[in-house]
Amino acid sequence: MGELLVKSCFVLFFFFVICQSSFASKKPLRQPCKSLELYYDDILFDGMDLMTFQFGMLVVFDDPVTLDSHLLSPPVARAQGFYFYDKKNDYNAWFAFTLVFNSTQYKGTLNIMGADLMAADTRDLSVVGGTGDFFLTKGIATIQTDVFQGDKYFRLKMDIKLYECY
Amino acid sequence: MGELLVKSCFVLFFFFVICQSSFASKKPLRQPCKSLELYYDDILFDGMDLMTFQFGMLVVFDDPVTLDSHLLSPPVARAQGFYFYDKKNDYNAWFAFTLVFNSTQYKGTLNIMGADLMAADTRDLSVVGGTGDFFLTKGIATIQTDVFQGDKYFRLKMDIKLYECY
Amino acid sequence: MGELLVKSCFVLFFFFVICQSSFASKKPLRQPCKSLELYYDDILFDGMDLMTFQFGMLVVFDDPVTLDSHLLSPPVARAQGFYFYDKKNDYNAWFAFTLVFNSTQYKGTLNIMGADLMAADTRDLSVVGGTGDFFLTKGIATIQTDVFQGDKYFRLKMDIKLYECY
Repeated sequence: MGELLVKSCFVLFFFFVICQSSFASKKPLRQPCKSLELYYDDILFDGMDLMTFQFGMLVVFDDPVTLDSHLLSPPVARAQGFYFYDKKNDYNAWFAFTLVFNSTQYKGTLNIMGADLMAADTRDLSVVGGTGDFFLTKGIATIQTDVFQGDKYFRLKMDIKLYECY
Repeated sequence: MGELLVKSCFVLFFFFVICQSSFASKKPLRQPCKSLELYYDDILFDGMDLMTFQFGMLVVFDDPVTLDSHLLSPPVARAQGFYFYDKKNDYNAWFAFTLVFNSTQYKGTLNIMGADLMAADTRDLSVVGGTGDFFLTKGIATIQTDVFQGDKYFRLKMDIKLYECY
Repeated sequence: MGELLVKSCFVLFFFFVICQSSFASKKPLRQPCKSLELYYDDILFDGMDLMTFQFGMLVVFDDPVTLDSHLLSPPVARAQGFYFYDKKNDYNAWFAFTLVFNSTQYKGTLNIMGADLMAADTRDLSVVGGTGDFFLTKGIATIQTDVFQGDKYFRLKMDIKLYECY
């Protein structure tokens, strides 16, 4: 009887966990009002490494952002900001940057920040604000490593979904 | 008569100031839809000090966050980001970081930034965005110094109140 | 006939571009619920330069903010945060900072981030959150260079428009 009770508790516990995760996977409940798919190329020239430390490396960048995965495609935006590595956890990074659009399609900026948990296949950063065509927006920038060559070069695919548009 | 007018103006002025402050203290008018109480332990090992300067110190961190004030409790999240000190004003700091939750209760991140005015008993930072279970949220993270041992260790109590939940 | 078609396409294309820009210029459609005009003075004393690099310079600041363009006017707030230059593009900068108000008029903070594209006459940063009297706000901080003396001193005029007030 006691054993049955323990088992029931386990079943209930796992049911609870499963409910929770299915609930989590049903999110987001809102549909984005604007979506962008972009590629961010980061080439780490010598002069771009601001410093190297035991704990990490802080990198300031001003890189082109393209609509496809070709480095030499005409950029639709520039990504300006910084990231740093936390090497203790195998290439974890933390980003804060601005996408600066100045094309016929979009003029304005998106401001983005968050942790880039590189072990996960896709990682979500927060779009915390915007200006111009992206006035007061907020949303999610889902990034995926497209190419990664250690400290020297990586390319991120960014799926940006915005949930407030004016 | 003129003196009476001047006095009345003063009375009105102070009445106005008092009204304002009582109005300020009545805020926030909204009730949070989600609340979290967390403890953030920062232990400054030698390798974690990125650099020391005349004006301040920039520290990159990746620290455990627990539900109580015991350093060795199982962490419910990690705090990843950076802060820097402004030593001219007696341990003022500026924070930008991400709380990364990966527990049975919560999966997702909270992105937080703001000034930590250490002279005040409690200080408010902005929760500027979130992902996963904290999709598109915003709110206030009120921090309070729980333990402070100079440059070597401190523990912050964080009361997080979120005002947009999906 | 083929030439006419090409010309028509061009006309349509330009019409489309014009429509877009006029649409862009009509924004923002919302009226701000609170507006502030502030001046931020940054004097780069020797001790404030955190470091100088080939690619840029990271500066941590804690500067007075005044209601007019006189450096010695009583400050209504302090600006605490950091910026870094991207010298490749002629004094582009990236800002993240907090305006800390502690006057009879306002108590609380505004958290601001974004790219400062110095070539443009006015540049928009995002107000991504606020605390105290600016509880949960968001908006736009439009900055304009008022005085600029290379690395040593600059003054920015900030027009802050907030679109969420409680």
